Amino acid sequence: MPSHMEHAMKTMMFTFHKFAGDKGYLTKEDLQVLMEKEFAGLLKNQKDPLNVEKIMKDLNQCRDGKVGFQNCFSLIVGLAIACNDYFVVHMKQKGKK
Amino acid sequence: MPSHMEHAMKTMMFTFHKFAGDKGYLTKEDLQVLMEKEFAGLLKNQKDPLNVEKIMKDLNQCRDGKVGFQNCFSLIVGLAIACNDYFVVHMKQKGKK
Repeated sequence: MPSHMEHAMKTMMFTFHKFAGDKGYLTKEDLQVLMEKEFAGLLKNQKDPLNVEKIMKDLNQCRDGKVGFQNCFSLIVGLAIACNDYFVVHMKQKGKK
Repeated sequence: MPSHMEHAMKTMMFTFHKFAGDKGYLTKEDLQVLMEKEFAGLLKNQKDPLNVEKIMKDLNQCRDGKVGFQNCFSLIVGLAIACNDYFVVHMKQKGKK
């Protein structure tokens, strides 16, 4: 049985391929749909919508608007690091950590 | 309800903090335990054990052997990219993709 981490990695891989389809990369439109469907909760709670626009712009600028697996994962890493920073500060404030 | 991707990100964050504890970073020993417990399946199927040793060495060389969230996530990205490359080749060979 895969561990939680292995399962999480599998989810990320499969989600990329679900939205990329046979062509193997995400277009700007695919990425927009992926973000809206898979990060709806995160985007809703984003206090600065410009941050998300900036991410989208950065991603779209690279390689003719084709976002490959590695670039897509970089986006997820950026989001995870931002979430982690928030989590650490939030937990410290609450004194739970 | 969080999406699959949001859940996967949460799993990765919480796993890091589970092994890092209050100090907020992983030591060499913490990382070894995390790898063995969370990537057991992946490591078992790794054909070249030197690759894993190399990852561990690279990670341990940075910042006095303290592996923070960002570095830990870089490791996961590296593993995910390797898995994805295998997945794409494997699926193409089988003609399922």
